[in-house]
Amino acid sequence: MKLLRYGPAGQEKPGMLDGEGRVRDLSAHVSDFAGESVSIEALDKLRSVDVSSLPVVENPGRIGACLATVPNFFCIGLNYAKHAAETGAEPPKEPIIFNKATSALSGPFDPVVIPRGSVKSDWEVELGVVIGKTASYISEEEALSHVAGYCVVNDMSERAFQIERGGTWMKGKSAPTFGPTGPWLVTADEIPDPQKLAVSLKLNGETVQDSNTDDMIFGVAEIVAYMSNFMQLQPGDIIATGTPSGVGMGMKPQRFLKPGDVMEVFIEGLGTQKQETVAAE
Amino acid sequence: MKLLRYGPAGQEKPGMLDGEGRVRDLSAHVSDFAGESVSIEALDKLRSVDVSSLPVVENPGRIGACLATVPNFFCIGLNYAKHAAETGAEPPKEPIIFNKATSALSGPFDPVVIPRGSVKSDWEVELGVVIGKTASYISEEEALSHVAGYCVVNDMSERAFQIERGGTWMKGKSAPTFGPTGPWLVTADEIPDPQKLAVSLKLNGETVQDSNTDDMIFGVAEIVAYMSNFMQLQPGDIIATGTPSGVGMGMKPQRFLKPGDVMEVFIEGLGTQKQETVAAE
Repeated sequence: MKLLRYGPAGQEKPGMLDGEGRVRDLSAHVSDFAGESVSIEALDKLRSVDVSSLPVVENPGRIGACLATVPNFFCIGLNYAKHAAETGAEPPKEPIIFNKATSALSGPFDPVVIPRGSVKSDWEVELGVVIGKTASYISEEEALSHVAGYCVVNDMSERAFQIERGGTWMKGKSAPTFGPTGPWLVTADEIPDPQKLAVSLKLNGETVQDSNTDDMIFGVAEIVAYMSNFMQLQPGDIIATGTPSGVGMGMKPQRFLKPGDVMEVFIEGLGTQKQETVAAE
Repeated sequence: MKLLRYGPAGQEKPGMLDGEGRVRDLSAHVSDFAGESVSIEALDKLRSVDVSSLPVVENPGRIGACLATVPNFFCIGLNYAKHAAETGAEPPKEPIIFNKATSALSGPFDPVVIPRGSVKSDWEVELGVVIGKTASYISEEEALSHVAGYCVVNDMSERAFQIERGGTWMKGKSAPTFGPTGPWLVTADEIPDPQKLAVSLKLNGETVQDSNTDDMIFGVAEIVAYMSNFMQLQPGDIIATGTPSGVGMGMKPQRFLKPGDVMEVFIEGLGTQKQETVAAE
């Protein structure tokens, strides 16, 4: 299933794409997508719904983030060898875990707001993993059975806030609209191998990131199992699994976002986001 | 008001303490405490309830965390000069922000589970600040008017996971039960000055942390205003504002928790927690 949320910000309704790419209204079957409503159990129930019985939404309008809220917006750092190299860092020996404030979550086509005082706002296409089952001390073999599905994430980053202001990276990762997520939550059954997905990002029409999830240092199963040793993962948690090379910080000269720039953020099978950047008020 | 949640884990009901220290049932007025239900507006409505009209709960039983869930469980690092010194770190120039997985939240008297593989589990009494109003780019003068209230937090920490496993501190801060919170959410009107509160922690009856929030490097108003430059704070977010000296990592020789240890965690006006540590299954 390709699940989505459509409508004005804060008033989104749950829907799914049908075989012809039309949006069908799911609100008779689920109130919204977040937490337990994206558990593997809840998704299995949705799967039994007769799609042809669902109302077609002729004009869905805005598409929101594919999750209404997330218990945690986790991220993995430096998870593609070439990206680690471009930042000047050694490839990590164990997955680097950090996070975004959950209020960074935003729609896949919403404008990205460059925060006040930012001079180093940067893009990062990432495979988002949505947890579907509580996970604590699970093995790598069990890990993918705890995944509800996948989505595109743009792990927007302000490099000065992230690196030059002390403490963890959260300061540079958490501004409002710094977490475009969606357009769809694609359930795991449609992605038999999350390590074989083309990943790319275009800036103003020019391809700047172009890679494949087969280049990850730590794969999805390894990340989920690893994290479950340190914390209990919950249904609806999202894990952005790191970005490949081609971010602005790694360019020579470095290149950062300015108002009016347009990002197109693509992952094979998961759809394409498109955001224009605007200045904070 | 001193707000609390009582009952078995996952089935807590909202209540408040009355003038005689009895628990009164609030469930006719609010379904639970989390997010918007602890907004300053929602709390103002609760304040108009006639306490004497509320049913007395004769046997409240277990007290849960004073919030059902949190959008974000933020923490400030090294925020007391003497604690920074005992860890061997320089006092920070700007607040250090990190976080716990939200699934770490637990009740103030629940056992603390030492995670598998842990040899360096440690205690940290902290003043918890609960946000009551969306905050973005606010000034220090405006900050306290965005605070719903205060509570005790034990920012449990596994030092090897935190410091020796790469990446941010989150790995050592996020195990289930590593966030005892409560017993009460004390509304801000009862704490006219959050920088004048005695703070202490006893381990097996011996006082190991003994300080006052007047020793904070960055005060509550400064922290809230500072954070609002990097992220939008939301009602129900919790910020644990750092711990004073006296943690196990800072002792000579170092001293860490073992099953059967008992922590009593106190902040003036906010109540006392008590946890026994147990080994993970």
